[in-house]
Amino acid sequence: MKTDSTPKLILRLKLRGGAILGPGKIDLLERIERLGSISAAAREMGMSYGQAWKLIETMNRAFPHPVVRKTTGGRSGGGAALTATGRKMLDCYVAMRRKAESRIAGELRAIGRLAGGSRR
Amino acid sequence: MKTDSTPKLILRLKLRGGAILGPGKIDLLERIERLGSISAAAREMGMSYGQAWKLIETMNRAFPHPVVRKTTGGRSGGGAALTATGRKMLDCYVAMRRKAESRIAGELRAIGRLAGGSRR
Repeated sequence: MKTDSTPKLILRLKLRGGAILGPGKIDLLERIERLGSISAAAREMGMSYGQAWKLIETMNRAFPHPVVRKTTGGRSGGGAALTATGRKMLDCYVAMRRKAESRIAGELRAIGRLAGGSRR
Repeated sequence: MKTDSTPKLILRLKLRGGAILGPGKIDLLERIERLGSISAAAREMGMSYGQAWKLIETMNRAFPHPVVRKTTGGRSGGGAALTATGRKMLDCYVAMRRKAESRIAGELRAIGRLAGGSRR
């Protein structure tokens, strides 16, 4: 049983070049995929377009192919979409998070119990 | 096979009260246990005693019982040791890291391959 005191697992990957892939960038990619727009994704996350673009650039530089590309044309004018690389990377991360959470659920609960009567 | 391009997994736990438990604090606990001294552990990590103590206080506040206690007496004068809570928490984290790494090894390698030809 997952209780309120169970810690939240945060998975971060340090890529060879030093770039960090964690919940913030993954959240951004998921929103870009859903919304088809960097500015809409940024707005939902309460960040500026510039901040979102900086995260995307970090990822685009960490992989040989970009993870997000801007799209032009269509009704929305300028949108954005995940590339095949971005899609694969996102799928890998999501699978990783699911598997890790399930594999270490017992330890997470145990640490939650240890912290259970926290003074804070 | 683990190659150089395999990302390094960083596990962080966000405890109910908001405190984060990650590699830095865990590394500190492991060194305190090995060295029996906060200042020696801090020195090995290239941080000041004050920085190390701040990390310990964050953990001590996040759990109902402290995770590190100062010891007095004996040849070394003032040392430090993990408490039973600290010991259990460390054991849980280490088991968690081992299990997660083994469970998601395939995805880690896959993301490493995606980043393999990185321009950086």
